[in-house]
Amino acid sequence: MRFSICAAIVFIFIHSPVFSQEYSFSDNDKYVLVIHGGAGTLLPGKMSAEKERAYRDKLTEALSAGYEKIKNGGQSLDAVTAAITVMEDSPLFNAGKGAVMTHEGKNELDASIMDGATQDAGAVAGITTVKNPILAARSVMEKSGHVMLSGPGAEHFAESQGLEIVAPEYFWTERRWENLQRVLEKDSAQVELDHDEKQTFSPPVVDNIDDKFGTVGAVARDKKGSLAAGTSTGGMNNKRFGRIGDSPIIGAGNYANNQVAISCTGWGEFYIRTVAAYNVASQMKLLGLSVEEASENVIEEIGNLGGTGGMIALDKDGNYATPFNTAGMYRGTVNEKGEIKVEIFK
Amino acid sequence: MRFSICAAIVFIFIHSPVFSQEYSFSDNDKYVLVIHGGAGTLLPGKMSAEKERAYRDKLTEALSAGYEKIKNGGQSLDAVTAAITVMEDSPLFNAGKGAVMTHEGKNELDASIMDGATQDAGAVAGITTVKNPILAARSVMEKSGHVMLSGPGAEHFAESQGLEIVAPEYFWTERRWENLQRVLEKDSAQVELDHDEKQTFSPPVVDNIDDKFGTVGAVARDKKGSLAAGTSTGGMNNKRFGRIGDSPIIGAGNYANNQVAISCTGWGEFYIRTVAAYNVASQMKLLGLSVEEASENVIEEIGNLGGTGGMIALDKDGNYATPFNTAGMYRGTVNEKGEIKVEIFK
Repeated sequence: MRFSICAAIVFIFIHSPVFSQEYSFSDNDKYVLVIHGGAGTLLPGKMSAEKERAYRDKLTEALSAGYEKIKNGGQSLDAVTAAITVMEDSPLFNAGKGAVMTHEGKNELDASIMDGATQDAGAVAGITTVKNPILAARSVMEKSGHVMLSGPGAEHFAESQGLEIVAPEYFWTERRWENLQRVLEKDSAQVELDHDEKQTFSPPVVDNIDDKFGTVGAVARDKKGSLAAGTSTGGMNNKRFGRIGDSPIIGAGNYANNQVAISCTGWGEFYIRTVAAYNVASQMKLLGLSVEEASENVIEEIGNLGGTGGMIALDKDGNYATPFNTAGMYRGTVNEKGEIKVEIFK
Repeated sequence: MRFSICAAIVFIFIHSPVFSQEYSFSDNDKYVLVIHGGAGTLLPGKMSAEKERAYRDKLTEALSAGYEKIKNGGQSLDAVTAAITVMEDSPLFNAGKGAVMTHEGKNELDASIMDGATQDAGAVAGITTVKNPILAARSVMEKSGHVMLSGPGAEHFAESQGLEIVAPEYFWTERRWENLQRVLEKDSAQVELDHDEKQTFSPPVVDNIDDKFGTVGAVARDKKGSLAAGTSTGGMNNKRFGRIGDSPIIGAGNYANNQVAISCTGWGEFYIRTVAAYNVASQMKLLGLSVEEASENVIEEIGNLGGTGGMIALDKDGNYATPFNTAGMYRGTVNEKGEIKVEIFK
C-alpha cells in the first residue's frame, strides 16, 4: 500500500483551518483548567432549579480549587487532582462518594492521570476503599514504578502511600442503590440463552443515562505551559464481572502530551475501541488539526459506531473544546484571570 | 495554534516512501499470520541447541495451527486464537501455562483480542483459573457487551461461557518459581524509604529479561482480507499490587482496524504511555506510512523513553514488520502458500 502524496495534500487542505471553522482566543482569555462532570440526557426542562444550582455550585467549587493551585504556581497535575477531588467528595457525580453500583451492589472505582510534560501516567481499577481514586492514580504514577494497578493490590499500595482509606460503605448512597434496584428489575428480563445454551450478556440496562456517564475529569495547563489530564469514575451502573471501562485506560479515557490534554466521559466500551483520547492527540500531532477539529472528529467516530458521550480537551496554547453527542454535559472552564464559566446544556 | 500547510507538506515528503526505504512483496508471498513469543536478551551463544529447537518447534506448531484455520476459510480471529492457544499451552512462553509469577507467587494472566473488520475488542486482566486467557478475551468480545473484564468477575464470566477452568496451580512451573525466588532476594534490597517515610517502589528487579518480555501474540489476515490481533501474557515477573501491563489494554499492547493489526511485547509501562499499538495504526492512517516505517517509529519512541521490547504488525496487503530493540524476539510468519519461517535472533 503505497502512500499518495496528492491525496494527503488534498486531505490536509480540506482539514486545514483555512477551510474550516476554528475558535481563536486572544491572549487575555487563555484557559487554564477545563472540567467535566459527565455527559447524559441533561435537558433544561427535566432538571429542577435546585438540582441545577447544586451542580453549578459544585462545578464552580472544583474549578476554584484547581485554579488556586495554578495561580499559586502549582503544577497542572495539582490543579487536576484538586478539581477532581472536589467532585469525588460530592455525591452529585459518578465518581468517589457518588459512584454508581455494580450488579452486586458494590462500588468499584477507577481513575487515571497523565503528565503531559513527561508522558508519565498512573491508573487504578476496581478499588473499593480509597477515598479519592484520583490521588491513588497519582501515587501509582509517582511512586509505584508501574502505570496501572488493580483491585486489592492497588488498595494495599494506596494505603502504603498514606492515602485516606475508608470502609467500602462510605461510597454507598441511597440514590445509587435505588437506581440499581430499578435497573435490576429490567435486567432480569434481558438475559438470554443463545443456541449453545451459553449466556449472552447485553450491555447492562440503564434507565437513567446519567448513571452511565457521570464520570468526572479535568485537564489543566500551568504557568510553565505543562499539561495534565485526569479522569475518575464509578463506571457503569449495574456493571458486572469486574468490568473495566475507559476511564483508567491511558489512551482511551485519558491522555496528555506536550500538545494537548484530554479527559473523556461516555459509554466506555466505545472509547476503548476508538482509543478516543489518544486519537484526538494523534490527529493534532500528525495532521495539525486544532483541538476543536480533532475532538469533534473523534466524537463523530464514536457516534458512528453507536457510542455516546463527550470529552474535554485543552491545548498548550489554552484553546479548548468540549464536544459531546448527548443532550448535555456538566462542564466548566476557568481562564488565567480566574473567570469561571459553568455549563450543563447544549 | 494555527496549522502550517507548508510544514505538513514538507513533513509528508520526508516521510513518504519515495524518500525512505520500504519493503514491497510480490503477490506470491503475501503473509497471512505473524506471531511472536516475546522479546528479550536472546543471543545465539547463550541458548542451548536443545532449547532453541524447542522454541522453533513450538513456534512452528503455533503457525501451523493458525494457518490451518485461514486455509480452510476461517476468520483471522480463528487463526489468532489457534496460534496463541498453542503458545499458552506450552511452558516455554510467559503466557498461560508458562506464566511468570507475582510477588506473592501466584499467576495472574492478561489477554486481549481485536477484530479489525468491526473494531470489536475483548480483554481480560488478572485472571487465575481460565486455561486459555485468549479464549476468555474472545468471549468477552463476542458475548459480554463489554470490552474489558477483570479478576474473579472475569473468571465467573468465562466459566458461564463454558471455557475450560483449571486450578490456579495448573499455571505453576518450577522454572518460574525459581526465577521468582532469585528475584525476591534482590528485590528485598531495593525497596527504599523516601523523605516522607512512604515507600517508593521501583519497577521490580528482573534478573532474566525473558521473564519480563515473554508475552505472546499473533496478527492475521484471512481470505476476505480481514485483520485481527491477539496478545496474551503472565505479565512481569515479581509484579505486585494487581499490576496490569499493556497486553490487555486495547491501543497499548494490541490493536486492529481494517488497515493493520498489531501485537506488542515488552516493558508494558512504556507501551501504555506511548499507546504503542494504536500509535502504529495512527501513523499509517494519518501519514500514510508503511507498516514497517510506522512500527519502527514507535519502537524508537519507546526506546527514547527508556523502554525496551518489540512488536509484530501485519497490514491488509500482507506486508509485515517485526521491529524490536532487544537482542532478539521469538517470531515467525506463514504466507499464503503455507511456507513457515521462524526466527529468534536479530
